[in-house]
Parts: sequence; structure tokens; C-alpha cells
Amino acid sequence: MTIAYADCAAMDSHDTLAHARGRFFLPDNVIYLDGNSLGALPRGALPHLVHVVDREWGDDLIRSWNKNDWIGMPARLGARLAPLIGAAPDEVIVADSTSVNLFKLAAAAVRFRSPRRVILTEHSNFPTDLYVLQGLEEMLDGAVTLHMVAREELEKSLNDDVALLALTHGDFRTGEIHDMRRLTEAAHAAGALALWDLSHSAGAMDILLDGDDVDLAIGCGYKYLNGGPGAPAFMFVARRHQAALRQPLSGWMGHAAPFDFADRYDPAGGMARMLCGTPPVLSMAALEEGLKTFDGIDMARVRQKSVALGELFLNLAETSCADSGFVIASPRDSHRRGSQISLRHPEGYAIMQALIEQGVIGDFRAPDILRFGFAPLYTRYVDVWNAVERLASVMAGEVWRQVRFHARAMVT
Amino acid sequence: MTIAYADCAAMDSHDTLAHARGRFFLPDNVIYLDGNSLGALPRGALPHLVHVVDREWGDDLIRSWNKNDWIGMPARLGARLAPLIGAAPDEVIVADSTSVNLFKLAAAAVRFRSPRRVILTEHSNFPTDLYVLQGLEEMLDGAVTLHMVAREELEKSLNDDVALLALTHGDFRTGEIHDMRRLTEAAHAAGALALWDLSHSAGAMDILLDGDDVDLAIGCGYKYLNGGPGAPAFMFVARRHQAALRQPLSGWMGHAAPFDFADRYDPAGGMARMLCGTPPVLSMAALEEGLKTFDGIDMARVRQKSVALGELFLNLAETSCADSGFVIASPRDSHRRGSQISLRHPEGYAIMQALIEQGVIGDFRAPDILRFGFAPLYTRYVDVWNAVERLASVMAGEVWRQVRFHARAMVT
Repeated sequence: MTIAYADCAAMDSHDTLAHARGRFFLPDNVIYLDGNSLGALPRGALPHLVHVVDREWGDDLIRSWNKNDWIGMPARLGARLAPLIGAAPDEVIVADSTSVNLFKLAAAAVRFRSPRRVILTEHSNFPTDLYVLQGLEEMLDGAVTLHMVAREELEKSLNDDVALLALTHGDFRTGEIHDMRRLTEAAHAAGALALWDLSHSAGAMDILLDGDDVDLAIGCGYKYLNGGPGAPAFMFVARRHQAALRQPLSGWMGHAAPFDFADRYDPAGGMARMLCGTPPVLSMAALEEGLKTFDGIDMARVRQKSVALGELFLNLAETSCADSGFVIASPRDSHRRGSQISLRHPEGYAIMQALIEQGVIGDFRAPDILRFGFAPLYTRYVDVWNAVERLASVMAGEVWRQVRFHARAMVT
Repeated sequence: MTIAYADCAAMDSHDTLAHARGRFFLPDNVIYLDGNSLGALPRGALPHLVHVVDREWGDDLIRSWNKNDWIGMPARLGARLAPLIGAAPDEVIVADSTSVNLFKLAAAAVRFRSPRRVILTEHSNFPTDLYVLQGLEEMLDGAVTLHMVAREELEKSLNDDVALLALTHGDFRTGEIHDMRRLTEAAHAAGALALWDLSHSAGAMDILLDGDDVDLAIGCGYKYLNGGPGAPAFMFVARRHQAALRQPLSGWMGHAAPFDFADRYDPAGGMARMLCGTPPVLSMAALEEGLKTFDGIDMARVRQKSVALGELFLNLAETSCADSGFVIASPRDSHRRGSQISLRHPEGYAIMQALIEQGVIGDFRAPDILRFGFAPLYTRYVDVWNAVERLASVMAGEVWRQVRFHARAMVT
């Protein structure tokens, strides 16, 4: 390797984000490169959860909805998340799952843009997004058509029947990121709204939802936002659209006066109308600690470090794994890449299992993709160096060939 | 009072459920009669959450989806809940919120019973259920009509255009319970499906979903099931309907093979197709401990004790608060009553605030209802005695008249 471990240690010693690693608990003897699937445990999460369970639930009981402002969590967490994605505090709210939130916003958008009938997306969108849009199409039974095209067909498929362009910012397989600004502009030029799923990018790069004139966005709390397994998700609606959009999952938390217990739904103002049922307080509390790991963090600096980690990985891997049969699945151009490097290999599953046994945790996606994610708040340059060194050592040995292939999968 | 404290203490000493109180943490100096809004903290919840956060999230990280069977939580919790509501283990699954789950099942039901177009419910159904059904109606824009009638009009409103009868088993205002068997039979006789919201009854009485031939049910995890604030909710689909129902919130967790990442939705078999997004693991973990508080508990005995607690409350209140201006809002016949007693009083809000200051926690529902809930696993007969004694003392004094009225509300 032309880049030495000592070089990486020097990069870490000059890293202006290095202090953020102390905000996380990371197990010994593990190099964790799967923060793109499940963020590491913030050190604040456990004491905060103990407090919420023991004092707020145990002692204060029902009074906590007011006394400890459980009722304010969806808006409070949304306001805390907003600056990480270039939104105003009143444009973001936290609730439900990414899939449920996509259903709400996509249904609201096609209703808003009626009589336009088409939702445009790409085949390589994250599968659950496709499934939810298919469910919406099926439910509306002819009133809406989901048009799935190849990535390169997206712009030419925008026409005056398109109500909504719905895309995921970062491709979960390759890490490729869309040009959000350009595609949003193209959608607007065709009279459509643009909805972005930020699950694979929020928390790993600077995102400018308002700056890029985005209409709608959703995203997941448990990847780079460090909110814990299955953390609640978020929604963004540009302020200019908030009063006009009505979503169908009109549960009581989205009512203008939920505690009046009227028998007619009357949507709340602002983002609150995007809520549905009672928030899962314990999971929300963990997400709040995840969001606090970004306190004082400059997202532009996060992006710089993310790019540097990815470049380091590729440079090291190109040297030390040159003859191992890997194909780089991610864009080589860092401007087009999110915070992961994906490598293809026909024996990818077995290789990843062997690597995990060596203490380097990435993940595998069928049929042949090894993913390595970089979470700039806690991934060090020396972690990347060690990870590639162990990958090279796995490939040099025979162990991975003995790992029995079976379809064991992990959740993104 | 004709029933003395010592009589109540004797009842507690003979109570075959008395041991279950030890499964909960209950704060000192509080008589908690709001388990119908938020169940008390199970003693197992905190240590289990510490384990899940510290060891499963912190140490095992992404591997926990398999290693610690996070992925199996929705079905595992469903199977644990099933016997509490008279269902088979493979007929119940835990996910999302009650409101979201109602949307799924109601949408699936009207599609299944097409071309029938009507969803029948009552004005006094729980408001969020009404709101969600209104959202469904609005989204389907003419394909479905929500018909809201008075309770006494329900049976005569069942006709051959009704696809679904959707009701809440226990009335949140009065505690009145519907005759689930009779109304389900009436729905079937008209060719409709019956959906029951068990939020206000599951965990407080014996429910026989299969025995009463119920088609669909939903319910909340955070009331009598003790699952913690905003706990995930449950769905029941009778086995005979599972293969035929398709719900529109078709996220990846409901896919037949979620980790194949195919671009077409293919619903899983059984209850798994009712899932949508990634489960909120931490809130699920707390709910699992809530469900464990029912280990070895006979639900018929829970019902007996619930009735006895309610009768005791009424008998004591009728004596000691006879001239205080209360009107009993709950059915006097215990067969028609769930596990709460509701009293009306024009100054109900102020009275409840004064009572809470005296350490008796019930809650208030506009415009004039004081609610007292009995959770047979931890409410003692002496608690009821003390609560009514303090209520009488509040009414005898002037304190409650000085409590300033302001619209401070608590979540059910």
C-alpha cells in the first residue's frame, strides 16, 4: 500500500470532526462500516432512555404527555433535524416509518396535482418506495399510474401528466447520488412536484432542501441519523405547500384540535397535519439523542470527510485488492457518490461473512454487492485503512471460500 | 361508607391476581386509575431496554436483526398477544399505530367486499377511527362512503351495500362495551365484515375474537397492555381472510421476500403482509415486556376483578358522593361496561385537577367527563376505596373550585 497506516493516523489527528466519535459507544475489536444500515449507539441514548422509562413513564405516567412534552416530540425532533437537511424548523416533522410517510406525501401530492395522473420513478429506487407507490397505484385503481423507468429516462419522461417525481437521493446499491437540484428543476419545469427519499443521505452530507427548491422529502432515522433500530422517520414539506396538502392517514395527531374529540377530521396547520397516530415515545427519545450527535457539526465538513473516507477506501482497495475480482459498483467521481463504497464480487456474500468474522462489519446486498458505509461522525481514517487491510487479507486466504452460502440477510 | 377500608384490604388478600401487582413499578403516594390511557411501567421493561440498547444495539449493531431476532418481533409479539384476545398466534401481528393499522385493514376490507361501497360506524366511535375512515373515504373519492349513525341505528343500517362494520369495542367516554358477538353476527348476516378496535378493552377483559367469529381487529399497545407510551399497535385478521386481503401500505416488511429487493411488490403469506416499514425496535421491546405482565394470567379472572373494582367504585361513590352533582355516565349494568367508570360533572375538569393534586390520577374528557380506569393486574380494592374517599373529600372542600380552568389535555 502506498498510503501507510501512519498517514491515516495523521489524518485522524487533524480531523476537525474527530471529537464527535466520543459521542458514540463503539464496541472493541469491531470496525463498523454499516452506519448506512444502522447508526452506532450514541452515548447519550442509554441514560436518556433510562430517564424516560424510569422517571417519565414510571413516575410521571400519563402526566408526561404535558409535563415532559411527549406531545411535542414530533415537531421538536423535526426542528432539530431540519438544519441537517437544509430545511426550516417548521418544515420537518418526525413520525411513523419512511414507508408510511411516503404513502402520505405521495397520496397528498397526486391529489394536489390532479388531474395529472402519473407518479414517475426509477426501477432502481429503493424497493420499499416502489412497493408503497405500487400500493398507492393499486388502491387508487386507475386514478394514478406509477411509471417506473430507467435512470437515464427520467428527465425525458417528465411531461404534463406527471404529478410527482419520486426518487431516492442516494442509491442503496451503488451509493450513487442524484443531482437533486437539477431533477427538481426538471420536475418543476414539467409542472410536477419533486419528492426525495433522503434515507441514504441524510446525516452523511450537506443537503439543501430549501436551497434546491425541493417540494417534499422523507427519510429514515436509523441510518446516518443514529436514531436506533427502526427509529421513526421524518417528513419535509416546503412551507409553500403545507396548507394545500391533505394526506389520507388522517389520524388524531394530525387534527387541528385532537383533544376536542370532535367526530369530523379538521387538519392541523403546518406540518402537524402530516401526523397520524400516537408517537412511539421510547423510539422517539432514542432518535432525539441520535440527532444530538450532530450538535455543532457543520454538514459541509461532514460531506468533505465522507468524500475523503470514500476516496481513501477506493485508493487503498485498488492497490491491495487489485487482483481479487472486485468491480467497483460506486461512481468513481466523488461528486456523484454518497457515503458508501460498493464493490461487486460473484462470491460477495461469502467474502462479507468472512470479513465480518475478521471484525469488519459491512453488509451484503443480493446478488453480488458488498457495501461499506462511512459515518463521518465516528468512522476514522485508520478504520478505513484497517478495513481494507483485512479485506485484502481475507482475499489472500481461503477462509471466505469455505463460508457456506446461505441466504442470510440483514436489514438496511 | 358502608364498605370499610378493612373490607377492601380483605378482598385484596383473597385476590388471586394480587401477585401480578409485583410485576409493575408504581410510584409512591399515587393511586393510578389511568391505565386505560397509559399502562403502568412493567418492572421488566427497564432492564430489558437497557439490554436491548446496550448489548443488542451497542455491541451487536446491525447483526441484531438476525442474532437477536429483531426481524421476528412483529410476529413474536403478535403470537404473545393472541391468547389475550382469543386469537390464534398466527392471526395477530404488531406494527405501526392503531390509526395506521385501521387504514390498512379498512382499505383491504372494502377492496375485498367490492362492489359494496359503505363503511358503517357510529358517531361515538373513537375519534381517530372516524378520522382515519374519513381519510380513506376522501382518498377513494366516491368509491367508498362512510356512514356514521347513532349507536341504536347500527343494526338497522346494515344492508347489502355495507362492506364493513367498523366499531370500537369499548367506548372511550362511557366505558360501555358493545356486544361483539351479536353485532358481528348482524354484519355477517348482511354480508359485511366486522372490524373491532380493541384499544379500550384488550388486556382488561376476556375477548374471544375467534369464538365470536370476528373478521378483523386492531388495538393499541399502550393502555391495558402496558406497552409504554405510544407503543406499537396490533392487527388481527381471521385466518380465513388472510390470503384474500391486500392492504395498500405495502412496504417492504410485508413483502414475501423483503431481502430480495425485487422491484415488484409480492405480498407475504399470513399476517406478514399487513406489515409496512421497519419496526421500531425499542418501542417493540417495551411492549414485549408489557405483554409478559400477562404471563400465566387467566383473562376471565381479569374480567371478574375488573367488574368487581368497578362495582366497588360505584357503590362507594353512590354513598359518599351522593350530593356532589355527579351523573354516572357508564352503564350501571356491569355486563355492558368495560374497565372504567365515567362520571359527568359540569366542573369535571377542575375536580379532576384537584383530585390529581391529591394523588389520585384519573383523567378528564371534554366536555364534562371524569374517567377512572381499573387495570386488574395492578389496581387494588384499597386503591378504589382510597380514590373514592379522596374524591369525596375533594367535593366536600372548596379546593377544586379554585382550580383555574384551562384546556390542558392528556392523551388517551
